[in-house]
Amino acid sequence: MRPITQDKMDKLTIFMKNNNIDLIYIADWESARDVNMRYLTGHIMDANLIITSGGETMLLPWDVDLAEDHAQVDTLVTDKDSRHNPADYVKEVAKKDNPVIGVNLGIPYRYILEIKRKIPGVKFFEEPHKLADTFRNLRATKSPQELEKLIEAGKIGNKAINDIRKFAEEKDGTENDLSFLVMKKMREYGAEENSFPSLVANVTRSHMIHCHPSAGNSKYSENGLALIDYGARIDGYVCDITIPLSFGKLTAEQEKIKKTCFKAYEEAIAAIEVGVPLWKISQAAVDVIEAAGYHMPHGLGHGLGLTVHDSPGIRQKPTEPERLEVWSEVLIEEGMVFTIEPGVYVKGLGGQRLENDVMIRNGKVEVYTNSEPIEI
Amino acid sequence: MRPITQDKMDKLTIFMKNNNIDLIYIADWESARDVNMRYLTGHIMDANLIITSGGETMLLPWDVDLAEDHAQVDTLVTDKDSRHNPADYVKEVAKKDNPVIGVNLGIPYRYILEIKRKIPGVKFFEEPHKLADTFRNLRATKSPQELEKLIEAGKIGNKAINDIRKFAEEKDGTENDLSFLVMKKMREYGAEENSFPSLVANVTRSHMIHCHPSAGNSKYSENGLALIDYGARIDGYVCDITIPLSFGKLTAEQEKIKKTCFKAYEEAIAAIEVGVPLWKISQAAVDVIEAAGYHMPHGLGHGLGLTVHDSPGIRQKPTEPERLEVWSEVLIEEGMVFTIEPGVYVKGLGGQRLENDVMIRNGKVEVYTNSEPIEI
Repeated sequence: MRPITQDKMDKLTIFMKNNNIDLIYIADWESARDVNMRYLTGHIMDANLIITSGGETMLLPWDVDLAEDHAQVDTLVTDKDSRHNPADYVKEVAKKDNPVIGVNLGIPYRYILEIKRKIPGVKFFEEPHKLADTFRNLRATKSPQELEKLIEAGKIGNKAINDIRKFAEEKDGTENDLSFLVMKKMREYGAEENSFPSLVANVTRSHMIHCHPSAGNSKYSENGLALIDYGARIDGYVCDITIPLSFGKLTAEQEKIKKTCFKAYEEAIAAIEVGVPLWKISQAAVDVIEAAGYHMPHGLGHGLGLTVHDSPGIRQKPTEPERLEVWSEVLIEEGMVFTIEPGVYVKGLGGQRLENDVMIRNGKVEVYTNSEPIEI
Repeated sequence: MRPITQDKMDKLTIFMKNNNIDLIYIADWESARDVNMRYLTGHIMDANLIITSGGETMLLPWDVDLAEDHAQVDTLVTDKDSRHNPADYVKEVAKKDNPVIGVNLGIPYRYILEIKRKIPGVKFFEEPHKLADTFRNLRATKSPQELEKLIEAGKIGNKAINDIRKFAEEKDGTENDLSFLVMKKMREYGAEENSFPSLVANVTRSHMIHCHPSAGNSKYSENGLALIDYGARIDGYVCDITIPLSFGKLTAEQEKIKKTCFKAYEEAIAAIEVGVPLWKISQAAVDVIEAAGYHMPHGLGHGLGLTVHDSPGIRQKPTEPERLEVWSEVLIEEGMVFTIEPGVYVKGLGGQRLENDVMIRNGKVEVYTNSEPIEI
């Protein structure tokens, strides 16, 4: 079943009609994922999707059996070679020589070129940022069914916290051991998979935003600042949790990193309220971090849904005039689900990031994952 | 250190000069990966890369620390906001109002639009297929250092085969249990990570090309046809192995699926020789599969390198005139590394795929992974 509600599908087709877009073409392949394909159809992955302004959907999947089990579309193309020639189907559906086609900003350039070659009179919708915003806005608030799934994923993530605490208390084992433990536990608790490879970093690696490799064979409980960033996926929906850990006696600077991170987290959570602009939540955390003399090298948070980096993004208001021009203020509203994850990182000393998942349900702010600092 | 050799770097800049390309712009981000970024610089992931026709490289990474550890470039941009404005740097490097810029076919459309906005007189190289082919050709043959890394990855994959056999012989445990076992063993044997989530399918799921989810909580050793498709990564380089398994007494049709798959594999391997066109290897397998009345829904194989689906692809010669027009015959040559993985799939009966990794070294064909059917 497709996750998008009929109400939202109507919003999309109204946007298309208002902007004279004849059809939208979406491609979701290993080389470039577009979560809108799954969101609009229920089909899991690897397909082309065409949507007309009348709301008719046509899917060209790689795996027809998978599509038969999951896709909710008007036309399922079962020709095994259709995936090689999506532009032919775009041409067929467009039914005119100079259609206006909407594409997402992330679509690989090859599809633009192929459609131009097949339909020389084609016009691509001239304000693709607006279409991208429309997709993001549709996905930025979740239906009650989606909220249930997100909570289910969060519960699985929460259950692993105790396992992580026990592992830390034993002060034994490597980053890889912890990575496996979490993966194993989450599947035991019902996850279909990790929503991403767990980032497990001891003090020598916790200063990295996304440590590489995700886990190694070093002892995890070396004295100092450590973290683990992990998530579970169930029926496509994800959670995303980061636990900051510390082992042994810290230096004064390490204590400051910790305190700054946790204070930034508290201020951000306290600022969340229906109707507040998202950038103000980010500002609340950044103010704390910058007052302490640090710089946060990533956004404060991101939406959660069928993808780990869904909309809305929780970021600073841009300062450059040209980015400000295409930027628009987004207010917190019912059905939004996002992470809050301030981080402070200093090469040589380590880093701390505290991350929980938040949803707005029945007008209330629910922090529905339970990460908190673990100090050993 | 960058994996590309100076000799190949020169080939790239000669191509640029011959085609009046002023610079190449490459983007590698979560939303769309481009392995050429790592191949050309050694930097792991998440960056923009600009290359001039003089061979000068400029990297705009997300994680500057990671880049300092890994990137081999002329200019490393450390401004934390540079990743938001790659088009500004493209403009700066281009140093003229109407530069010709080469981009890869998979680049997200957003970058095309942003560069056009910043440099209104820009021209994008008009034959992007040729540039994409150039990148593929550079990566299609490996340096001796790369061959060593690929063999190392293959050895790690090979070690897990015995563990899989033992697991199967015990006829106990779920798909997930086997998935974890393989992951754990491969890290024990030295892999930095799985090269992709292992696909572990019992008889109810082995008909799927890429089973979803990758593993579940069902018993693995149910009577019938099963498979496991897995790989290891070390220093970026990967192996890719599929073992076909069968449990208990099979139906006549299941026996036919098995035999057809293995015969197709044997014929393909036998056809590999320096100087032979790659499509003929594919044809050798497809002939066997189609003679038995089946259709193979995927290519016969793919290159291996810093990505699991590297060049060269081992596929059929296209039949449609317009695909044939942009197609060119590739011959097997020294330094090529690729999988051979014929598969036969029947919904309701299951599937079999046998996959090993092959390299051409010192003029000889080496099948350097050891997958073979496991029959219990």
